[in-house]
Amino acid sequence: MAGTPPGTGLAPAELERFATLAALEAVARRRLSEAALEYVAGGSWDETTLRENGEAFRRLRFRARVLSGVTAADLSTTILGRPVRTPLGVAPMAQHGFCHPDGEVPAARAAAAAGWTFALSTLATRSLEDVAAATVDLGGARRWFQLYVQEDFDLSRSLVERAEAAGYEAIVVTVDLPMVGYRGRDLRGTGLTLRRGNFPNVALDDTKTIGRRHPPLTWDLLDTVSGWTRLPLIVKGILDPDDACLAVAHGAAGVVVSNHGGRQLDRVPASIEALPAVADAVAGSAEVYLDGGVRRGLDVVMALALGARAVFVGRPILYGIAAGGEAGAARAMEIIRMETERAMILLGAQAIRDLGPELLIPAVR
Amino acid sequence: MAGTPPGTGLAPAELERFATLAALEAVARRRLSEAALEYVAGGSWDETTLRENGEAFRRLRFRARVLSGVTAADLSTTILGRPVRTPLGVAPMAQHGFCHPDGEVPAARAAAAAGWTFALSTLATRSLEDVAAATVDLGGARRWFQLYVQEDFDLSRSLVERAEAAGYEAIVVTVDLPMVGYRGRDLRGTGLTLRRGNFPNVALDDTKTIGRRHPPLTWDLLDTVSGWTRLPLIVKGILDPDDACLAVAHGAAGVVVSNHGGRQLDRVPASIEALPAVADAVAGSAEVYLDGGVRRGLDVVMALALGARAVFVGRPILYGIAAGGEAGAARAMEIIRMETERAMILLGAQAIRDLGPELLIPAVR
Amino acid sequence: MAGTPPGTGLAPAELERFATLAALEAVARRRLSEAALEYVAGGSWDETTLRENGEAFRRLRFRARVLSGVTAADLSTTILGRPVRTPLGVAPMAQHGFCHPDGEVPAARAAAAAGWTFALSTLATRSLEDVAAATVDLGGARRWFQLYVQEDFDLSRSLVERAEAAGYEAIVVTVDLPMVGYRGRDLRGTGLTLRRGNFPNVALDDTKTIGRRHPPLTWDLLDTVSGWTRLPLIVKGILDPDDACLAVAHGAAGVVVSNHGGRQLDRVPASIEALPAVADAVAGSAEVYLDGGVRRGLDVVMALALGARAVFVGRPILYGIAAGGEAGAARAMEIIRMETERAMILLGAQAIRDLGPELLIPAVR
Amino acid sequence: MAGTPPGTGLAPAELERFATLAALEAVARRRLSEAALEYVAGGSWDETTLRENGEAFRRLRFRARVLSGVTAADLSTTILGRPVRTPLGVAPMAQHGFCHPDGEVPAARAAAAAGWTFALSTLATRSLEDVAAATVDLGGARRWFQLYVQEDFDLSRSLVERAEAAGYEAIVVTVDLPMVGYRGRDLRGTGLTLRRGNFPNVALDDTKTIGRRHPPLTWDLLDTVSGWTRLPLIVKGILDPDDACLAVAHGAAGVVVSNHGGRQLDRVPASIEALPAVADAVAGSAEVYLDGGVRRGLDVVMALALGARAVFVGRPILYGIAAGGEAGAARAMEIIRMETERAMILLGAQAIRDLGPELLIPAVR
Repeated sequence: MAGTPPGTGLAPAELERFATLAALEAVARRRLSEAALEYVAGGSWDETTLRENGEAFRRLRFRARVLSGVTAADLSTTILGRPVRTPLGVAPMAQHGFCHPDGEVPAARAAAAAGWTFALSTLATRSLEDVAAATVDLGGARRWFQLYVQEDFDLSRSLVERAEAAGYEAIVVTVDLPMVGYRGRDLRGTGLTLRRGNFPNVALDDTKTIGRRHPPLTWDLLDTVSGWTRLPLIVKGILDPDDACLAVAHGAAGVVVSNHGGRQLDRVPASIEALPAVADAVAGSAEVYLDGGVRRGLDVVMALALGARAVFVGRPILYGIAAGGEAGAARAMEIIRMETERAMILLGAQAIRDLGPELLIPAVR
Repeated sequence: MAGTPPGTGLAPAELERFATLAALEAVARRRLSEAALEYVAGGSWDETTLRENGEAFRRLRFRARVLSGVTAADLSTTILGRPVRTPLGVAPMAQHGFCHPDGEVPAARAAAAAGWTFALSTLATRSLEDVAAATVDLGGARRWFQLYVQEDFDLSRSLVERAEAAGYEAIVVTVDLPMVGYRGRDLRGTGLTLRRGNFPNVALDDTKTIGRRHPPLTWDLLDTVSGWTRLPLIVKGILDPDDACLAVAHGAAGVVVSNHGGRQLDRVPASIEALPAVADAVAGSAEVYLDGGVRRGLDVVMALALGARAVFVGRPILYGIAAGGEAGAARAMEIIRMETERAMILLGAQAIRDLGPELLIPAVR
Repeated sequence: MAGTPPGTGLAPAELERFATLAALEAVARRRLSEAALEYVAGGSWDETTLRENGEAFRRLRFRARVLSGVTAADLSTTILGRPVRTPLGVAPMAQHGFCHPDGEVPAARAAAAAGWTFALSTLATRSLEDVAAATVDLGGARRWFQLYVQEDFDLSRSLVERAEAAGYEAIVVTVDLPMVGYRGRDLRGTGLTLRRGNFPNVALDDTKTIGRRHPPLTWDLLDTVSGWTRLPLIVKGILDPDDACLAVAHGAAGVVVSNHGGRQLDRVPASIEALPAVADAVAGSAEVYLDGGVRRGLDVVMALALGARAVFVGRPILYGIAAGGEAGAARAMEIIRMETERAMILLGAQAIRDLGPELLIPAVR
Repeated sequence: MAGTPPGTGLAPAELERFATLAALEAVARRRLSEAALEYVAGGSWDETTLRENGEAFRRLRFRARVLSGVTAADLSTTILGRPVRTPLGVAPMAQHGFCHPDGEVPAARAAAAAGWTFALSTLATRSLEDVAAATVDLGGARRWFQLYVQEDFDLSRSLVERAEAAGYEAIVVTVDLPMVGYRGRDLRGTGLTLRRGNFPNVALDDTKTIGRRHPPLTWDLLDTVSGWTRLPLIVKGILDPDDACLAVAHGAAGVVVSNHGGRQLDRVPASIEALPAVADAVAGSAEVYLDGGVRRGLDVVMALALGARAVFVGRPILYGIAAGGEAGAARAMEIIRMETERAMILLGAQAIRDLGPELLIPAVR
């Protein structure tokens, strides 16, 4: 088993003491180097969208009903037509290795154990084959592969083919990164060592930026990628309903409403604010997912109620592995699950299908 | 007389120096243990609703008229058809014993003396019979019994029957707790000792949560409870006008607009924001009460003006007994009464019936 | 001359260094006793209206025009049909003596010298005759007498008659004080010595509250007071347009839009927010004045633009006398005048008649 | 070359470490005297408009589209019909000499090198001829001359004629300064030495205020100035659409939407809030520019999208020269350029003409 090496985090029993993601994050912040924390926690420009991702959730209000007879909540649903135990996933994030020596393995294993979908980044520390192999013993892991299209299209194609071969179930094409967002601290030497698990022998010019690449990407890209694989395509980085429709028209099986965790263009709307119009526009012709700012089960329920089929969690999972490796990620997932179930019960929703927009009212101010 | 034991609080003369509930709370905060304070003061999740309960009052604005000729205000009214000296009550709260060694007795006695209605929690530290007996010498005490329906319906029924026998005048059925709200600190050992005054010999599984119970509660519950007693039923925990109508349809004589003091589902509206629509929906077919965030006579007047027949005060009464036992609770009640009368006079309202929605204007922002 | 005794404040040359009322207030706060400062600076309940009085001004926005050809502003206007050098006045305030040993004389003299109208409170430290005599040498002082109607109507009548005899030009009847507003610190011993300049030999029961009195005051009061004097009546404490119309119907020559500086009922609108509807309702049938929150010439211009014929300044004048006696009040008045002129020039307004609602646009948020 | 003397700032290599204007400003704040910093950084009255200039930008939200195929942005455009490399300029500011011993030369040279338009103030430390000569070696510098019309019209005329002779390409007539805005610190001795580079031998009475002058300026002024020169006139200080139309009617080739950096009348709208209505009113009959609060490339893109043909940057350039002379100004300009290009790429805008109001959505709150 690829677990947490000795000394790299809190033990499971200690982790039990933490009942919120905020508490787990506080542990992680003490353990991470300044550079790693800055890389993980930061956003672009003034971090307006980064902050708004969370605050927009907290401005929404539930319409609470009582005496529903619900005493337990069932989180099972389907994603892309296949049953899953939860509508939750780990958002694709580069370089888990900044937070844990085993890279993406701890989070991937925790996800498999918890019934979460795990999305592996093109810029993962570990190779997609390594991550696949590391969860074999757990069975039934749902893995997606996130694709940053590289200047070398053959390289991109080979990544997609390898992902399909390794059992990844969807290709998540990120479309909001024609260039990385501006960060005041990009240019400073961070001392972080980039490990490119998926293409260790390819020389890329990214001395200053991580993940920079150059092909002018247009909607044709989706058709091109479709030609490389039988896997469903998911388009990540959609905020505008018209773009969502274009994605569907180009064959996307799903779209992720996302502003890249507030790391790309700043002053775009919070994910949860962009979600309703996208869900309306797609109108069931594809699945709609959301990431960005999810820190509470309340957020999960709100996103599901407003049209998301699944909700992806990002930074909190990295804080989890920083705090306690696989057990830390598992604890983060358990907290989110407990909170989501509790919120559903208090709302009178027994199952995911009971969550709809009628459960929300406009924010008080 | 069951009063404040020596050494358990400030003397009445000292309490006179405090003219606001905030000042009394500051005293209590210094006297309570960290665990007790956290239990009493805290709310669920991010405490958004907890904060909003108070802030929503402060966003409202009075429409002030002058030269009304009013120089004194009369707080007397009726509740459930019976005359009371004030439209004020003590909200049902578990475990007064965390704040005072005599449990619910000090607050119940102060309520009886001040003409407040006292609601005793199922999860009181002291038995309902003890509390009834402790106020006999004061005469005319108005007491309600709050019911958490237990998994064992016979146990619930016996509680209701005992309450009726002991002279409680209404059964307050709490409906917003199919499970306790999520609190970041639930799982930590608090060192608090739960005393279950009303059923000391019943083993319940609440090692982790207080008041947890499991029957799937639906609107039929009200019919069931009605079958156990001739007392009027009051449904507590209503925020939605449709639920208020359901409560009336199931025979409720009153509904309490309440979000459980921000302790159950977070991100629901403040009580005072939920009140007007509930009052409109009920339209006089039952009485409407409110609790949540009441800290000022201004709040009381606003709630009465927006349709509440009575207003219940929660945490400030616990701070009162923590600060000075029965005398502390009495001081808290006196402060609220003084403020309410002063606000009525300044508004030109001589009697409770003079308070209506025309006395409020929309908040400036 | 009744000026500032040696040692009671900064010298005029020192005062020149302060160019804002805030700077002058900071000096005063260091010089006043805690009790006096609390009495002067505080408001009722949560001080919501006290804060809003100022913040509401800062939410308004000017519509700025350019190249108007204006390089100087003329503040002269008329009040009650008589020419005045400025549309500014000192609001009636009890007990200037808490801030300066000479009581109301320093502010009254500074007002006379600056062309401000001075309103003397019923509860002044010095007698109305003393204050009148102290400004004889300055000539042309405009003085108003503020009336708190006392339980003893004969006493009230004699005050009005004395004011008329002493050359006061209007009777300002305060109507928003059927009882003093609730202040958390009312009941504490303050050590302040009340000096009742206008009726030193009358025993009143105000051990706990200042200015408390009991007759049930209705609109008939204005007719009664009218019968006592030939002076014009001004009704102070109006926030509602209907009340403004009632005041006019009962013969008021003017109304003061005021919430008593946030000292009476809390959670009423800011004065500047109440002004436009009152000005509309009165529609020229009486003059409209404003007090509350005026700290900047920008505030003065906004109030004049929204329909006030004159603007009264309260606490800043007390801070002025605390900082430097008569010279301190004069400096406060000079600052307000400089700021008002500067704002008018920058707005392109040469004279008071050029100020109208077209100079304001809705606040941005 | 007139560059940064030894010891007057950070070296270019050090400046590279700073990737935001805020970081550069922090350096400057440590290097400037208190008086110079107060002069440069401050605004009038409560600095409400000063703050709003920046906050209003941050309340706007981009409508982000993806897969546009854009990987590089071209900032070239035309201003007044002539090609420029960027739509950026240095706003006219008095007394660069407070921030650098070489006065306006470092910023003018950096502007010429970066393809920015440089606007020289009437109240420059250095003469307009000096500044023109200092950029000869760089070629193609675009310089404008800002005119404060002086009481002595002959003096104003000679300034305009000298500017035209020295190759300045437009006369920017400032119209929002009939008198300087009120600043709480105006009257204090600052120890700053004013150097009047453009008219060293003229005695002006400005002992208390900088740039004060007295002719009553009306719209005729523009006709008068037009008669002195063949250069196009630009009217600076417009916030109102009607004034913008008047400027065009009087022959202006351009208007600068500006509130003088929050230094003149306070409580006027932020520049970016005033821009859309002005752009609508002018409707292409003149060019529209903006200054005020620009600190991010995001701000530049927003202003261009809402109708500005060019955007002028003020205080950040002074902070640049304070931090590192010419190299500091160059670094500030490079940061703004990098951010602007990055924002355009992320928005899918390849060229300036691609920026329009459809790229913005209303602020979330």
